[in-house]
Amino acid sequence: MERRSSCPISFSLDLLGDRWTLLVVRDLALKGKRTFSELHQSDEGIATNILSDRLARLEERGVLTKERDPEDRRRFRYGLTDAGKALLPVLVELIVWGATHDPKTDAPQSFVDEARTRRGRLLQRLRRNLEDE
Amino acid sequence: MERRSSCPISFSLDLLGDRWTLLVVRDLALKGKRTFSELHQSDEGIATNILSDRLARLEERGVLTKERDPEDRRRFRYGLTDAGKALLPVLVELIVWGATHDPKTDAPQSFVDEARTRRGRLLQRLRRNLEDE
Repeated sequence: MERRSSCPISFSLDLLGDRWTLLVVRDLALKGKRTFSELHQSDEGIATNILSDRLARLEERGVLTKERDPEDRRRFRYGLTDAGKALLPVLVELIVWGATHDPKTDAPQSFVDEARTRRGRLLQRLRRNLEDE
Repeated sequence: MERRSSCPISFSLDLLGDRWTLLVVRDLALKGKRTFSELHQSDEGIATNILSDRLARLEERGVLTKERDPEDRRRFRYGLTDAGKALLPVLVELIVWGATHDPKTDAPQSFVDEARTRRGRLLQRLRRNLEDE
């Protein structure tokens, strides 16, 4: 995709600025999903062609890795690169904003409170969970 | 728009998940733009119909205010509500991620460093700048 400007927000949105991409990152970063069929199962009901497209773009842009599953060679496993893990702070801020402004949110208040008051510790824990897999 | 799930990230993306909306918020939050013609002038070249649409959606969703300019009653002035100002942390994280992963970024290193090491202070200053207008 052609870049629109040298603004870093614009750069981020060139990759992430749609309704689905960050949900795929969410499922890899926070829900431990690793396979296409796991990623396909979500409350938002992502279509398979959109999921395939977003996975390919995220891989091409160095945000995720795609490897054959050693336990089932017909399957692939997806994981986040360092650039993908570096999106955790973006996800956390979208959670805080969404949870605060959506009267029907299902976000646990404890998570939102921790993100507000002990953000560094929360990010460290989320990061460690990802590394430990 | 119909909500896709009760996930707070999905809620945020239902409003913000496109290539343009957060650029409009950026221009109001960080560049001090207030009028349609100021918002229309940007390196990314937003089309007038997209700008009109995003301004209307952001107003409808309580993220910005639209008022007649007291100095020129034919014109409107846009501003961020508290919900709009609460997007500053999202913008800051998109700047950090974009600046870190774009080799051609024009983001000032000092801003990125401050976002990483003295984030609270940076957000406080950005917020104060907005309140002081």
